[in-house]
Amino acid sequence: MRFDEATAAAPLGHGRWSTPVHDGWDIGGNANGGYLLGLAARAMSAAAERPDPVTISAHYLRPGAPGPASVTASVIKTGRRFATVSATLADSEERPILQVLGAFSDLGDASLDGADIERVDATPPDLPPPDDCVRIEGTDTFPPPVMSRIDLRLHPDDALFTTGPSGHPLVRGWFRLLNDEPIDTIALLLAADAFPPTAFNAKLPVAWVPTVELTAHIRARPVPGWLRCEFTTRFVTGGFLEEDGVVWDDSGRLVAQSRQLALLPRG
Amino acid sequence: MRFDEATAAAPLGHGRWSTPVHDGWDIGGNANGGYLLGLAARAMSAAAERPDPVTISAHYLRPGAPGPASVTASVIKTGRRFATVSATLADSEERPILQVLGAFSDLGDASLDGADIERVDATPPDLPPPDDCVRIEGTDTFPPPVMSRIDLRLHPDDALFTTGPSGHPLVRGWFRLLNDEPIDTIALLLAADAFPPTAFNAKLPVAWVPTVELTAHIRARPVPGWLRCEFTTRFVTGGFLEEDGVVWDDSGRLVAQSRQLALLPRG
Repeated sequence: MRFDEATAAAPLGHGRWSTPVHDGWDIGGNANGGYLLGLAARAMSAAAERPDPVTISAHYLRPGAPGPASVTASVIKTGRRFATVSATLADSEERPILQVLGAFSDLGDASLDGADIERVDATPPDLPPPDDCVRIEGTDTFPPPVMSRIDLRLHPDDALFTTGPSGHPLVRGWFRLLNDEPIDTIALLLAADAFPPTAFNAKLPVAWVPTVELTAHIRARPVPGWLRCEFTTRFVTGGFLEEDGVVWDDSGRLVAQSRQLALLPRG
Repeated sequence: MRFDEATAAAPLGHGRWSTPVHDGWDIGGNANGGYLLGLAARAMSAAAERPDPVTISAHYLRPGAPGPASVTASVIKTGRRFATVSATLADSEERPILQVLGAFSDLGDASLDGADIERVDATPPDLPPPDDCVRIEGTDTFPPPVMSRIDLRLHPDDALFTTGPSGHPLVRGWFRLLNDEPIDTIALLLAADAFPPTAFNAKLPVAWVPTVELTAHIRARPVPGWLRCEFTTRFVTGGFLEEDGVVWDDSGRLVAQSRQLALLPRG
């Protein structure tokens, strides 16, 4: 199943969309956080009548199991450049799974003032070619099923599933959708939360790292091809950690930045 | 006027608070973004019945002029650890100024699982003592009035107001409230948006850098004393830039991380 089909949002009227959580995008029975955010963003984009989530923040309130779900979206403000939308993704019993706030725009419109001013003090991660990286294949347990829905290749130095944790809170790799499905700006939200946690590479004694909140800035529509992704963590403290992501497209352009705040319950 | 008084939220019932935008916290007549977020957070904290905004995201929809304003807050979910609140700060004509989503908790409760796991791969910025830094004094124009409400000392190498732009998108300095007012976790939101923009030090040809969205993670309550703050930008591209902030307390502990997405209209 394609990502765009798996995140389809069918209008129900009155600011509501039917957004079923599809099978197979999960980790131990609970849908991947980036997939859930994509599902919410698809409905919010329809509400906004703009295609691209320029900045979007999601609070994770409850695991999302496969089954019926819906998004209720309110357009807070529509401006010339942005439409700002608040939304709730809820399960069939109306219990909130995700609360989301996002600004949608049209990143294909190059008329933004200052769009020609460029200064980039970073470079894409240096990765061996995809075929020389470690492809993560989904299983029924671990690696999780969602890995079978995407094509994810880890840098051999960061491939904790095969070579063991590196000791560093760093995960780098390639990402694409299956069967050359184009990566739109909503699929970038999946890329921002699809990689194994940095905490696992850092050998932290944690069982898992549930996301409290994730914010992504989508800076451009990616050109066709692989994405280069890099995730790092600097601050593991007070029962929380942040995970910062940077996503580059095949032309070497920054397309997304992400940051999530996660808990670190002990293993 | 103290920050806590200037961000007081008086309950109006039915999930509404009166939150007047006070005079003097402005930049050219529009209230500082961190101050506005503090105002919203004060009411949201009351709605959440928890003191600390652990992760909070604000979308800036319209400038906030001094005068009557109100916050309407909905508690989306109350859990054992977090209460998640969605809120709108609106002016006297009910036009939204800020749309905010935040999770509130009690950071004084040290029982969080994994709170003893520490790994910090960063150090506070190396700053000369406050008296050897450059104090920014507010004026009626520039530096803006809000600078008279706080005590902000820039690293001499980053003190664009006195020595001119450094050429680097970096701003470091000390922050405290006036008259030894304690800095609570809501005042950290002010610290996260009180410094001059990195874009000015980088000599970008921009008139100003209006915030689209700001997310702050509050990781701990600061001990009394000065805060050490550092703001950086890596990606100026496509008409947007991010500004990342890291805030440390006087004990050398990380207390906040922030990231904002801003526009860069030409000067």
